[in-house]
Amino acid sequence: MAGALFDRVAIVGIGLIGSSLARVIRRDLPQTRIVACARRAETLAAVRRLGLADETTDDPAAAAEGADLVVLATPLSAYGPLARRIAPALKPGAIVTDVGSVKEAAIADIAPALPTNAHFVPGHPVAGTEHSGPEAGFAEMFADRWCILTPSPETDPAAVAKVRALWELARMRVVTMPAEHHDKVLAVTSHLPHLIAYTIVGTATELGEDLQSEVVAYSAGGFRDFTRIAASDPVMWRDIFLANSDAVLELLQRFSEDLTALQRAIRRGDGDTLHEWFTRTRAIRRSIIEAKQA
Amino acid sequence: MAGALFDRVAIVGIGLIGSSLARVIRRDLPQTRIVACARRAETLAAVRRLGLADETTDDPAAAAEGADLVVLATPLSAYGPLARRIAPALKPGAIVTDVGSVKEAAIADIAPALPTNAHFVPGHPVAGTEHSGPEAGFAEMFADRWCILTPSPETDPAAVAKVRALWELARMRVVTMPAEHHDKVLAVTSHLPHLIAYTIVGTATELGEDLQSEVVAYSAGGFRDFTRIAASDPVMWRDIFLANSDAVLELLQRFSEDLTALQRAIRRGDGDTLHEWFTRTRAIRRSIIEAKQA
Repeated sequence: MAGALFDRVAIVGIGLIGSSLARVIRRDLPQTRIVACARRAETLAAVRRLGLADETTDDPAAAAEGADLVVLATPLSAYGPLARRIAPALKPGAIVTDVGSVKEAAIADIAPALPTNAHFVPGHPVAGTEHSGPEAGFAEMFADRWCILTPSPETDPAAVAKVRALWELARMRVVTMPAEHHDKVLAVTSHLPHLIAYTIVGTATELGEDLQSEVVAYSAGGFRDFTRIAASDPVMWRDIFLANSDAVLELLQRFSEDLTALQRAIRRGDGDTLHEWFTRTRAIRRSIIEAKQA
Repeated sequence: MAGALFDRVAIVGIGLIGSSLARVIRRDLPQTRIVACARRAETLAAVRRLGLADETTDDPAAAAEGADLVVLATPLSAYGPLARRIAPALKPGAIVTDVGSVKEAAIADIAPALPTNAHFVPGHPVAGTEHSGPEAGFAEMFADRWCILTPSPETDPAAVAKVRALWELARMRVVTMPAEHHDKVLAVTSHLPHLIAYTIVGTATELGEDLQSEVVAYSAGGFRDFTRIAASDPVMWRDIFLANSDAVLELLQRFSEDLTALQRAIRRGDGDTLHEWFTRTRAIRRSIIEAKQA
Protein backbone atom coordinates (compact mmCIF):
# COMPACT_ATOMS: atom_id res chain seq x y z
CA MET A 1 0.00 0.00 0.00
CA ALA A 2 2.46 2.62 -1.20
CA GLY A 3 1.55 6.12 -0.05
CA ALA A 4 -0.63 5.17 2.88
CA LEU A 5 0.40 7.00 6.04
CA PHE A 6 -0.52 4.04 8.27
CA ASP A 7 -2.12 0.75 7.34
CA ARG A 8 -3.23 -0.03 10.85
CA VAL A 9 -3.77 2.39 13.75
CA ALA A 10 -4.57 1.32 17.31
CA ILE A 11 -6.30 3.91 19.46
CA VAL A 12 -6.03 2.94 23.11
CA GLY A 13 -8.56 4.92 25.14
CA ILE A 14 -11.25 6.17 22.80
CA GLY A 15 -12.92 9.12 24.51
CA LEU A 16 -13.23 12.71 23.32
CA ILE A 17 -9.75 12.95 21.76
CA GLY A 18 -9.35 9.35 20.61
CA SER A 19 -12.75 9.25 18.92
CA SER A 20 -12.20 12.62 17.26
CA LEU A 21 -8.93 11.31 15.84
CA ALA A 22 -10.73 8.15 14.66
CA ARG A 23 -13.20 10.37 12.81
CA VAL A 24 -10.32 12.23 11.11
CA ILE A 25 -8.78 8.93 10.02
CA ARG A 26 -12.13 7.67 8.73
CA ARG A 27 -12.56 10.89 6.76
CA ASP A 28 -9.06 11.30 5.33
CA LEU A 29 -7.48 7.83 5.41
CA PRO A 30 -10.36 5.53 4.46
CA GLN A 31 -7.92 2.67 3.67
CA THR A 32 -6.52 2.70 7.21
CA ARG A 33 -7.73 0.00 9.56
CA ILE A 34 -8.63 1.32 13.01
CA VAL A 35 -8.51 -0.81 16.14
CA ALA A 36 -10.15 0.77 19.18
CA CYS A 37 -9.29 -0.34 22.69
CA ALA A 38 -11.18 0.60 25.85
CA ARG A 39 -11.70 -0.96 29.25
CA ARG A 40 -15.45 -0.54 29.39
CA ALA A 41 -17.82 -2.59 27.24
CA GLU A 42 -20.23 0.37 26.87
CA THR A 43 -17.46 2.46 25.35
CA LEU A 44 -16.63 -0.22 22.81
CA ALA A 45 -20.32 -0.67 22.01
CA ALA A 46 -20.61 3.07 21.37
CA VAL A 47 -17.54 2.96 19.11
CA ARG A 48 -19.10 0.14 17.08
CA ARG A 49 -22.45 1.92 16.91
CA LEU A 50 -20.70 5.07 15.66
CA GLY A 51 -18.68 3.07 13.12
CA LEU A 52 -15.41 4.51 14.40
CA ALA A 53 -13.31 1.33 14.27
CA ASP A 54 -12.86 -1.84 12.26
CA GLU A 55 -12.03 -3.83 15.36
CA THR A 56 -12.70 -3.28 19.06
CA THR A 57 -11.00 -4.94 22.02
CA ASP A 58 -10.44 -4.44 25.72
CA ASP A 59 -6.91 -5.90 25.43
CA PRO A 60 -4.25 -3.23 24.73
CA ALA A 61 -1.73 -5.87 23.58
CA ALA A 62 -4.19 -7.29 21.04
CA ALA A 63 -4.88 -3.74 19.77
CA ALA A 64 -1.17 -2.96 19.41
CA GLU A 65 -0.38 -6.18 17.58
CA GLY A 66 0.57 -5.42 14.00
CA ALA A 67 -0.23 -1.69 14.33
CA ASP A 68 1.92 0.83 12.48
CA LEU A 69 0.81 3.49 14.96
CA VAL A 70 -0.42 3.13 18.52
CA VAL A 71 -2.09 6.23 19.98
CA LEU A 72 -2.37 6.32 23.77
CA ALA A 73 -5.38 8.52 24.56
CA THR A 74 -6.27 7.54 28.12
CA PRO A 75 -5.82 9.63 31.27
CA LEU A 76 -2.12 10.07 32.12
CA SER A 77 -2.09 7.65 35.06
CA ALA A 78 -2.78 4.72 32.72
CA TYR A 79 0.22 5.40 30.48
CA GLY A 80 2.85 3.44 32.43
CA PRO A 81 0.83 0.23 32.81
CA LEU A 82 -0.39 0.46 29.20
CA ALA A 83 3.11 0.97 27.80
CA ARG A 84 4.21 -2.18 29.63
CA ARG A 85 1.20 -4.09 28.28
CA ILE A 86 1.67 -3.11 24.63
CA ALA A 87 5.48 -3.32 24.51
CA PRO A 88 5.77 -7.08 23.83
CA ALA A 89 3.10 -6.88 21.10
CA LEU A 90 4.64 -4.03 19.08
CA LYS A 91 6.01 -4.92 15.67
CA PRO A 92 9.53 -3.67 14.80
CA GLY A 93 9.39 -0.06 13.62
CA ALA A 94 5.98 0.62 15.16
CA ILE A 95 5.34 4.23 16.16
CA VAL A 96 3.83 5.00 19.56
CA THR A 97 2.37 8.42 20.31
CA ASP A 98 0.21 9.88 23.04
CA VAL A 99 -2.08 12.88 23.51
CA GLY A 100 -1.33 13.70 27.14
CA SER A 101 -1.37 17.23 28.55
CA VAL A 102 1.87 16.78 30.56
CA LYS A 103 4.83 15.69 28.46
CA GLU A 104 7.68 15.09 30.92
CA ALA A 105 5.52 12.73 32.97
CA ALA A 106 4.21 10.99 29.85
CA ILE A 107 7.73 10.41 28.60
CA ALA A 108 8.93 9.17 31.99
CA ASP A 109 6.06 6.65 32.10
CA ILE A 110 6.08 5.45 28.50
CA ALA A 111 9.60 5.65 27.06
CA PRO A 112 11.41 3.22 29.39
CA ALA A 113 8.81 0.51 28.77
CA LEU A 114 9.04 0.46 24.97
CA PRO A 115 11.37 -1.79 22.95
CA THR A 116 14.32 -0.05 21.27
CA ASN A 117 13.00 -0.89 17.80
CA ALA A 118 9.80 1.11 18.39
CA HIS A 119 9.61 4.89 17.88
CA PHE A 120 8.03 7.07 20.55
CA VAL A 121 6.75 10.51 19.48
CA PRO A 122 5.11 12.27 22.45
CA GLY A 123 2.32 14.60 21.36
CA HIS A 124 -0.34 16.93 22.67
CA PRO A 125 -3.18 18.15 20.48
CA VAL A 126 -4.28 21.31 22.33
CA ALA A 127 -7.99 20.98 21.64
CA GLY A 128 -11.02 19.68 23.41
CA THR A 129 -14.38 20.46 24.92
CA GLU A 130 -15.80 19.91 28.39
CA HIS A 131 -17.57 16.76 27.18
CA SER A 132 -16.25 13.21 27.46
CA GLY A 133 -16.64 9.89 25.70
CA PRO A 134 -16.72 8.70 22.07
CA GLU A 135 -20.12 10.29 21.38
CA ALA A 136 -18.69 13.72 22.21
CA GLY A 137 -15.91 13.65 19.61
CA PHE A 138 -15.92 15.32 16.20
CA ALA A 139 -13.31 15.53 13.45
CA GLU A 140 -13.37 19.35 13.28
CA MET A 141 -12.40 19.71 16.95
CA PHE A 142 -8.72 19.96 16.02
CA ALA A 143 -9.03 22.43 13.16
CA ASP A 144 -6.78 25.51 13.49
CA ARG A 145 -5.60 24.46 16.96
CA TRP A 146 -2.02 23.70 17.85
CA CYS A 147 -0.51 20.27 18.24
CA ILE A 148 2.75 20.16 20.20
CA LEU A 149 5.16 17.28 19.64
CA THR A 150 8.01 16.79 22.13
CA PRO A 151 10.29 14.14 20.63
CA SER A 152 13.77 13.66 22.05
CA PRO A 153 16.66 14.70 19.78
CA GLU A 154 17.35 11.00 19.12
CA THR A 155 13.90 10.19 17.76
CA ASP A 156 13.76 8.95 14.15
CA PRO A 157 12.79 12.00 12.04
CA ALA A 158 10.66 9.82 9.74
CA ALA A 159 8.53 8.73 12.70
CA VAL A 160 8.08 12.34 13.82
CA ALA A 161 7.14 13.33 10.26
CA LYS A 162 4.43 10.66 10.12
CA VAL A 163 2.85 11.74 13.41
CA ARG A 164 3.04 15.33 12.25
CA ALA A 165 1.34 14.40 8.99
CA LEU A 166 -1.51 12.74 10.89
CA TRP A 167 -2.24 15.84 12.98
CA GLU A 168 -1.93 18.01 9.89
CA LEU A 169 -4.68 15.92 8.32
CA ALA A 170 -6.73 16.96 11.36
CA ARG A 171 -5.85 20.51 10.26
CA MET A 172 -3.76 21.23 13.31
CA ARG A 173 -0.75 23.54 13.31
CA VAL A 174 2.04 21.26 14.46
CA VAL A 175 5.10 22.48 16.36
CA THR A 176 7.86 20.73 18.27
CA MET A 177 9.42 21.88 21.54
CA PRO A 178 11.19 20.35 24.54
CA ALA A 179 8.86 18.52 26.92
CA GLU A 180 9.86 20.64 29.89
CA HIS A 181 9.03 23.84 28.04
CA HIS A 182 5.67 22.43 26.95
CA ASP A 183 4.78 21.68 30.54
CA LYS A 184 5.56 25.25 31.64
CA VAL A 185 3.52 26.82 28.85
CA LEU A 186 0.54 24.56 29.40
CA ALA A 187 0.61 25.17 33.13
CA VAL A 188 -0.24 28.79 32.30
CA THR A 189 -2.62 28.34 29.39
CA SER A 190 -4.54 25.35 30.63
CA HIS A 191 -3.66 23.80 33.99
CA LEU A 192 -3.88 26.87 36.21
CA PRO A 193 -7.11 28.09 34.52
CA HIS A 194 -8.70 24.71 35.12
CA LEU A 195 -7.58 24.61 38.75
CA ILE A 196 -9.00 28.08 39.37
CA ALA A 197 -12.27 27.22 37.64
CA TYR A 198 -12.60 24.04 39.68
CA THR A 199 -11.92 26.02 42.84
CA ILE A 200 -14.43 28.79 42.25
CA VAL A 201 -17.21 26.44 41.20
CA GLY A 202 -16.48 24.35 44.30
CA THR A 203 -16.60 27.46 46.48
CA ALA A 204 -20.04 28.24 45.06
CA THR A 205 -21.35 24.73 45.71
CA GLU A 206 -20.57 25.17 49.38
CA LEU A 207 -22.82 28.17 49.81
CA GLY A 208 -26.23 27.67 51.41
CA GLU A 209 -28.79 25.80 49.30
CA ASP A 210 -31.01 28.85 48.78
CA LEU A 211 -28.16 30.85 47.36
CA GLN A 212 -27.02 27.92 45.24
CA SER A 213 -30.14 27.75 43.10
CA GLU A 214 -29.85 31.48 42.50
CA VAL A 215 -26.22 31.07 41.53
CA VAL A 216 -27.37 28.68 38.83
CA ALA A 217 -30.13 31.04 37.68
CA TYR A 218 -27.88 34.08 37.43
CA SER A 219 -24.79 32.31 36.16
CA ALA A 220 -24.74 34.26 32.89
CA GLY A 221 -22.78 37.05 34.60
CA GLY A 222 -19.47 35.19 34.27
CA PHE A 223 -19.82 32.14 36.48
CA ARG A 224 -21.11 29.84 33.75
CA ASP A 225 -17.86 30.14 31.78
CA PHE A 226 -16.09 28.70 34.80
CA THR A 227 -18.62 25.91 35.19
CA ARG A 228 -17.99 24.85 31.61
CA ILE A 229 -14.28 24.51 32.29
CA ALA A 230 -14.96 22.86 35.66
CA ALA A 231 -17.12 20.23 33.96
CA SER A 232 -14.09 18.64 32.28
CA ASP A 233 -13.22 15.02 32.96
CA PRO A 234 -12.27 14.61 36.66
CA VAL A 235 -9.87 11.67 36.19
CA MET A 236 -8.02 13.33 33.35
CA TRP A 237 -7.57 16.50 35.37
CA ARG A 238 -6.61 14.79 38.61
CA ASP A 239 -3.81 13.12 36.63
CA ILE A 240 -2.70 16.37 35.00
CA PHE A 241 -2.30 18.21 38.32
CA LEU A 242 -0.40 15.35 39.88
CA ALA A 243 1.83 14.96 36.82
CA ASN A 244 2.63 18.66 36.41
CA SER A 245 2.60 19.60 40.07
CA ASP A 246 5.89 21.53 40.11
CA ALA A 247 4.94 23.95 37.33
CA VAL A 248 1.36 24.32 38.61
CA LEU A 249 2.42 25.00 42.20
CA GLU A 250 4.95 27.59 41.12
CA LEU A 251 2.38 29.45 39.07
CA LEU A 252 -0.19 29.17 41.82
CA GLN A 253 2.23 31.01 44.05
CA ARG A 254 2.42 33.92 41.61
CA PHE A 255 -1.35 33.89 41.12
CA SER A 256 -1.95 34.04 44.88
CA GLU A 257 0.38 37.00 45.24
CA ASP A 258 -1.43 38.84 42.46
CA LEU A 259 -4.83 38.03 43.93
CA THR A 260 -3.69 39.34 47.30
CA ALA A 261 -2.61 42.60 45.66
CA LEU A 262 -6.03 43.07 44.06
CA GLN A 263 -7.77 42.08 47.28
CA ARG A 264 -5.77 44.72 49.10
CA ALA A 265 -6.68 47.33 46.46
CA ILE A 266 -10.37 46.54 46.91
CA ARG A 267 -10.12 46.72 50.69
CA ARG A 268 -8.34 50.07 50.55
CA GLY A 269 -10.63 51.48 47.86
CA ASP A 270 -7.65 51.91 45.52
CA GLY A 271 -9.46 52.33 42.19
CA ASP A 272 -6.34 53.35 40.25
CA THR A 273 -4.60 50.03 40.88
CA LEU A 274 -7.71 48.13 39.80
CA HIS A 275 -8.20 50.22 36.69
CA GLU A 276 -4.55 49.90 35.65
CA TRP A 277 -4.68 46.11 36.12
CA PHE A 278 -7.96 45.68 34.21
CA THR A 279 -6.70 47.77 31.31
CA ARG A 280 -3.58 45.66 30.97
CA THR A 281 -5.53 42.39 30.83
CA ARG A 282 -7.68 43.74 28.02
CA ALA A 283 -4.63 43.99 25.78
CA ILE A 284 -3.86 40.28 25.98
CA ARG A 285 -7.36 39.47 24.74
CA ARG A 286 -6.63 41.51 21.65
CA SER A 287 -3.43 39.51 21.06
CA ILE A 288 -5.44 36.29 21.20
CA ILE A 289 -7.99 37.60 18.73
CA GLU A 290 -5.15 38.66 16.41
CA ALA A 291 -3.59 35.18 16.76
CA LYS A 292 -6.95 33.72 15.68
CA GLN A 293 -7.26 31.58 18.82
CA ALA A 294 -10.46 33.28 20.08
CA MET B 1 -51.10 58.33 23.29
CA ALA B 2 -53.07 55.75 25.28
CA GLY B 3 -51.32 52.40 25.57
CA ALA B 4 -47.77 53.62 24.99
CA LEU B 5 -45.43 52.37 27.71
CA PHE B 6 -43.31 55.53 27.58
CA ASP B 7 -43.55 58.50 25.24
CA ARG B 8 -40.04 59.69 25.90
CA VAL B 9 -37.09 57.70 27.24
CA ALA B 10 -33.73 59.23 28.14
CA ILE B 11 -30.76 56.84 28.12
CA VAL B 12 -27.87 58.38 30.00
CA GLY B 13 -24.68 56.52 29.14
CA ILE B 14 -25.19 54.69 25.88
CA GLY B 15 -22.63 51.90 25.75
CA LEU B 16 -23.18 48.16 25.44
CA ILE B 17 -26.27 48.00 27.69
CA GLY B 18 -27.77 51.39 26.92
CA SER B 19 -27.49 50.94 23.17
CA SER B 20 -28.91 47.42 23.33
CA LEU B 21 -31.90 48.78 25.22
CA ALA B 22 -32.27 51.55 22.62
CA ARG B 23 -32.39 48.87 19.93
CA VAL B 24 -35.16 47.04 21.83
CA ILE B 25 -37.17 50.26 22.12
CA ARG B 26 -36.66 51.00 18.42
CA ARG B 27 -37.86 47.51 17.57
CA ASP B 28 -40.83 47.19 19.91
CA LEU B 29 -41.86 50.75 20.78
CA PRO B 30 -41.41 52.61 17.50
CA GLN B 31 -43.54 55.53 18.74
CA THR B 32 -41.26 56.17 21.70
CA ARG B 33 -38.86 59.07 21.42
CA ILE B 34 -35.32 58.20 22.55
CA VAL B 35 -32.89 60.79 23.88
CA ALA B 36 -29.32 59.56 24.21
CA CYS B 37 -26.84 61.26 26.50
CA ALA B 38 -23.10 60.64 26.59
CA ARG B 39 -20.05 62.64 27.58
CA ARG B 40 -17.99 61.92 24.51
CA ALA B 41 -18.80 63.41 21.10
CA GLU B 42 -17.65 60.23 19.30
CA THR B 43 -20.15 58.17 21.25
CA LEU B 44 -22.99 60.51 20.30
CA ALA B 45 -21.84 60.51 16.68
CA ALA B 46 -21.93 56.69 16.69
CA VAL B 47 -25.43 56.75 18.17
CA ARG B 48 -26.62 59.07 15.41
CA ARG B 49 -24.92 56.98 12.74
CA LEU B 50 -26.59 53.85 14.10
CA GLY B 51 -29.96 55.62 14.28
CA LEU B 52 -30.41 54.68 17.92
CA ALA B 53 -31.86 57.98 19.17
CA ASP B 54 -34.09 60.83 18.06
CA GLU B 55 -32.02 63.35 20.01
CA THR B 56 -28.48 63.31 21.35
CA THR B 57 -26.95 65.54 24.00
CA ASP B 58 -24.03 65.67 26.39
CA ASP B 59 -26.19 67.36 29.03
CA PRO B 60 -27.91 64.88 31.39
CA ALA B 61 -30.41 67.52 32.58
CA ALA B 62 -31.47 68.31 29.01
CA ALA B 63 -31.88 64.57 28.34
CA ALA B 64 -34.00 64.06 31.45
CA GLU B 65 -36.27 67.03 30.72
CA GLY B 66 -39.75 65.80 29.88
CA ALA B 67 -38.73 62.13 29.94
CA ASP B 68 -41.20 59.53 31.25
CA LEU B 69 -38.29 57.22 31.93
CA VAL B 70 -34.64 57.99 32.57
CA VAL B 71 -32.28 55.02 32.34
CA LEU B 72 -28.88 55.48 33.98
CA ALA B 73 -26.50 53.18 32.13
CA THR B 74 -23.07 54.60 32.96
CA PRO B 75 -20.42 53.05 35.24
CA LEU B 76 -21.53 53.07 38.88
CA SER B 77 -19.25 55.89 39.99
CA ALA B 78 -21.14 58.38 37.81
CA TYR B 79 -24.55 57.62 39.38
CA GLY B 80 -24.37 60.08 42.28
CA PRO B 81 -23.28 63.11 40.25
CA LEU B 82 -25.74 62.23 37.46
CA ALA B 83 -28.67 61.85 39.85
CA ARG B 84 -27.94 65.32 41.22
CA ARG B 85 -27.72 66.72 37.67
CA ILE B 86 -31.00 65.24 36.42
CA ALA B 87 -33.05 65.75 39.61
CA PRO B 88 -34.11 69.38 38.94
CA ALA B 89 -35.08 68.52 35.34
CA LEU B 90 -37.35 65.57 36.10
CA LYS B 91 -41.05 66.05 35.45
CA PRO B 92 -43.48 65.00 38.23
CA GLY B 93 -44.12 61.26 38.10
CA ALA B 94 -41.01 60.52 36.02
CA ILE B 95 -39.50 57.07 36.53
CA VAL B 96 -35.75 56.69 37.02
CA THR B 97 -34.09 53.30 36.68
CA ASP B 98 -30.51 52.08 36.38
CA VAL B 99 -28.72 49.00 35.11
CA GLY B 100 -25.89 48.80 37.66
CA SER B 101 -24.36 45.55 38.88
CA VAL B 102 -24.33 46.57 42.57
CA LYS B 103 -27.72 47.59 43.90
CA GLU B 104 -27.12 48.82 47.45
CA ALA B 105 -24.48 51.26 46.26
CA ALA B 106 -26.64 52.37 43.32
CA ILE B 107 -29.54 53.07 45.65
CA ALA B 108 -27.35 54.92 48.15
CA ASP B 109 -26.01 57.14 45.36
CA ILE B 110 -29.22 57.79 43.41
CA ALA B 111 -32.23 57.69 45.76
CA PRO B 112 -31.34 60.58 48.08
CA ALA B 113 -30.78 62.93 45.14
CA LEU B 114 -34.17 62.43 43.46
CA PRO B 115 -37.27 64.56 44.12
CA THR B 116 -40.05 62.84 46.07
CA ASN B 117 -42.44 63.02 43.10
CA ALA B 118 -40.13 60.87 40.96
CA HIS B 119 -40.15 57.05 41.14
CA PHE B 120 -36.86 55.17 41.43
CA VAL B 121 -36.84 51.51 40.33
CA PRO B 122 -33.31 50.08 40.66
CA GLY B 123 -32.64 47.38 38.10
CA HIS B 124 -29.94 45.05 36.81
CA PRO B 125 -30.28 43.26 33.48
CA VAL B 126 -27.86 40.33 33.93
CA ALA B 127 -26.59 40.23 30.38
CA GLY B 128 -23.64 41.50 28.44
CA THR B 129 -20.57 40.66 26.43
CA GLU B 130 -16.91 41.60 26.84
CA HIS B 131 -17.32 44.36 24.25
CA SER B 132 -18.06 48.01 24.98
CA GLY B 133 -19.65 50.98 23.26
CA PRO B 134 -22.82 51.61 21.23
CA GLU B 135 -21.55 49.63 18.22
CA ALA B 136 -21.28 46.51 20.37
CA GLY B 137 -24.92 46.44 21.46
CA PHE B 138 -27.70 44.27 20.01
CA ALA B 139 -31.35 43.87 20.94
CA GLU B 140 -31.14 40.09 21.39
CA MET B 141 -28.48 40.38 24.08
CA PHE B 142 -31.12 40.32 26.81
CA ALA B 143 -33.21 37.41 25.51
CA ASP B 144 -33.81 34.64 28.07
CA ARG B 145 -31.53 36.28 30.64
CA TRP B 146 -32.64 37.51 34.03
CA CYS B 147 -33.38 41.07 35.00
CA ILE B 148 -33.36 41.75 38.73
CA LEU B 149 -35.31 44.72 40.09
CA THR B 150 -34.68 45.83 43.68
CA PRO B 151 -37.36 48.43 44.48
CA SER B 152 -37.94 49.43 48.09
CA PRO B 153 -41.27 48.31 49.60
CA GLU B 154 -42.51 51.92 49.31
CA THR B 155 -41.98 52.19 45.55
CA ASP B 156 -45.10 52.85 43.46
CA PRO B 157 -46.15 49.44 42.06
CA ALA B 158 -47.23 51.06 38.78
CA ALA B 159 -43.72 52.39 38.23
CA VAL B 160 -42.21 48.97 38.96
CA ALA B 161 -44.70 47.38 36.55
CA LYS B 162 -43.67 49.72 33.74
CA VAL B 163 -39.96 49.03 34.17
CA ARG B 164 -40.74 45.33 34.33
CA ALA B 165 -42.75 45.61 31.11
CA LEU B 166 -39.81 47.28 29.35
CA TRP B 167 -37.39 44.49 30.23
CA GLU B 168 -40.00 41.91 29.32
CA LEU B 169 -40.13 43.47 25.85
CA ALA B 170 -36.40 42.74 25.75
CA ARG B 171 -37.48 39.14 26.50
CA MET B 172 -35.85 39.09 29.91
CA ARG B 173 -37.18 37.08 32.84
CA VAL B 174 -37.82 39.73 35.46
CA VAL B 175 -37.66 39.08 39.21
CA THR B 176 -37.56 41.35 42.24
CA MET B 177 -35.47 40.84 45.37
CA PRO B 178 -33.93 42.97 48.13
CA ALA B 179 -30.86 44.93 47.02
CA GLU B 180 -28.63 43.39 49.66
CA HIS B 181 -29.53 39.89 48.52
CA HIS B 182 -28.89 40.81 44.89
CA ASP B 183 -25.41 41.99 45.79
CA LYS B 184 -24.56 38.72 47.55
CA VAL B 185 -25.78 36.57 44.67
CA LEU B 186 -23.99 38.62 42.04
CA ALA B 187 -20.76 38.58 44.05
CA VAL B 188 -20.75 34.82 43.45
CA THR B 189 -22.06 34.61 39.91
CA SER B 190 -20.29 37.58 38.42
CA HIS B 191 -17.99 39.70 40.58
CA LEU B 192 -15.71 36.99 41.97
CA PRO B 193 -15.41 35.25 38.56
CA HIS B 194 -14.38 38.52 36.97
CA LEU B 195 -11.85 39.28 39.69
CA ILE B 196 -10.30 35.83 39.32
CA ALA B 197 -10.19 36.11 35.55
CA TYR B 198 -8.55 39.53 35.77
CA THR B 199 -6.01 38.13 38.22
CA ILE B 200 -5.01 35.08 36.20
CA VAL B 201 -4.70 36.99 32.95
CA GLY B 202 -2.60 39.58 34.76
CA THR B 203 -0.39 36.85 36.22
CA ALA B 204 0.22 35.57 32.70
CA THR B 205 1.12 39.00 31.36
CA GLU B 206 3.92 39.21 33.90
CA LEU B 207 5.70 36.13 32.63
CA GLY B 208 8.75 36.57 30.44
CA GLU B 209 8.08 37.85 26.92
CA ASP B 210 9.02 34.59 25.20
CA LEU B 211 6.55 32.66 27.25
CA GLN B 212 3.89 35.31 26.73
CA SER B 213 3.62 34.89 22.98
CA GLU B 214 3.29 31.16 23.51
CA VAL B 215 0.58 31.72 26.09
CA VAL B 216 -1.35 33.55 23.41
CA ALA B 217 -0.75 30.82 20.83
CA TYR B 218 -1.82 27.96 23.10
CA SER B 219 -4.64 29.79 24.86
CA ALA B 220 -7.30 27.36 23.59
CA GLY B 221 -6.58 25.07 26.53
CA GLY B 222 -8.71 27.13 28.93
CA PHE B 223 -6.92 30.43 29.25
CA ARG B 224 -8.79 32.18 26.44
CA ASP B 225 -12.11 31.87 28.31
CA PHE B 226 -10.54 33.90 31.09
CA THR B 227 -9.17 36.48 28.69
CA ARG B 228 -12.65 37.03 27.30
CA ILE B 229 -13.98 37.80 30.77
CA ALA B 230 -10.90 39.87 31.59
CA ALA B 231 -11.48 42.02 28.50
CA SER B 232 -14.60 43.59 30.03
CA ASP B 233 -14.76 47.34 30.57
CA PRO B 234 -12.10 48.39 33.13
CA VAL B 235 -13.98 51.42 34.51
CA MET B 236 -17.23 49.50 34.95
CA TRP B 237 -15.44 46.74 36.81
CA ARG B 238 -13.31 49.00 38.96
CA ASP B 239 -16.56 50.59 40.13
CA ILE B 240 -18.24 47.24 40.77
CA PHE B 241 -15.45 45.97 43.02
CA LEU B 242 -15.31 49.20 44.99
CA ALA B 243 -19.11 49.32 45.34
CA ASN B 244 -19.56 45.68 46.39
CA SER B 245 -16.32 45.30 48.32
CA ASP B 246 -17.80 43.69 51.45
CA ALA B 247 -19.48 40.80 49.63
CA VAL B 248 -16.55 40.33 47.26
CA LEU B 249 -13.94 40.30 50.04
CA GLU B 250 -15.93 37.80 52.09
CA LEU B 251 -16.22 35.44 49.14
CA LEU B 252 -12.58 35.90 48.25
CA GLN B 253 -11.71 34.64 51.70
CA ARG B 254 -13.66 31.41 51.11
CA PHE B 255 -12.18 31.04 47.64
CA SER B 256 -8.63 31.42 48.98
CA GLU B 257 -9.25 28.76 51.61
CA ASP B 258 -10.55 26.35 48.97
CA LEU B 259 -7.64 27.08 46.66
CA THR B 260 -5.21 26.42 49.50
CA ALA B 261 -6.88 23.04 50.11
CA LEU B 262 -6.47 22.04 46.46
CA GLN B 263 -2.91 23.36 46.40
CA ARG B 264 -2.14 21.19 49.43
CA ALA B 265 -3.70 18.16 47.72
CA ILE B 266 -1.51 18.69 44.66
CA ARG B 267 1.62 19.12 46.78
CA ARG B 268 0.89 15.93 48.73
CA GLY B 269 -0.13 13.94 45.65
CA ASP B 270 -3.60 13.41 47.11
CA GLY B 271 -5.51 12.34 43.98
CA ASP B 272 -8.65 11.31 45.86
CA THR B 273 -9.29 14.82 47.17
CA LEU B 274 -8.80 16.27 43.68
CA HIS B 275 -11.04 13.69 42.04
CA GLU B 276 -13.81 14.15 44.60
CA TRP B 277 -13.69 17.93 44.16
CA PHE B 278 -13.68 17.80 40.34
CA THR B 279 -16.62 15.39 40.30
CA ARG B 280 -18.68 17.69 42.50
CA THR B 281 -18.10 20.72 40.29
CA ARG B 282 -19.30 18.81 37.23
CA ALA B 283 -22.76 18.48 38.77
CA ILE B 284 -23.31 22.24 38.96
CA ARG B 285 -22.67 22.55 35.24
CA ARG B 286 -25.51 20.12 34.63
CA SER B 287 -27.81 22.29 36.79
CA ILE B 288 -26.95 25.30 34.66
CA ILE B 289 -27.66 23.41 31.46
CA GLU B 290 -31.00 22.28 32.89
CA ALA B 291 -31.79 25.87 33.88
CA LYS B 292 -31.13 26.84 30.23
CA GLN B 293 -28.46 29.40 31.19
CA ALA B 294 -25.62 27.63 29.36
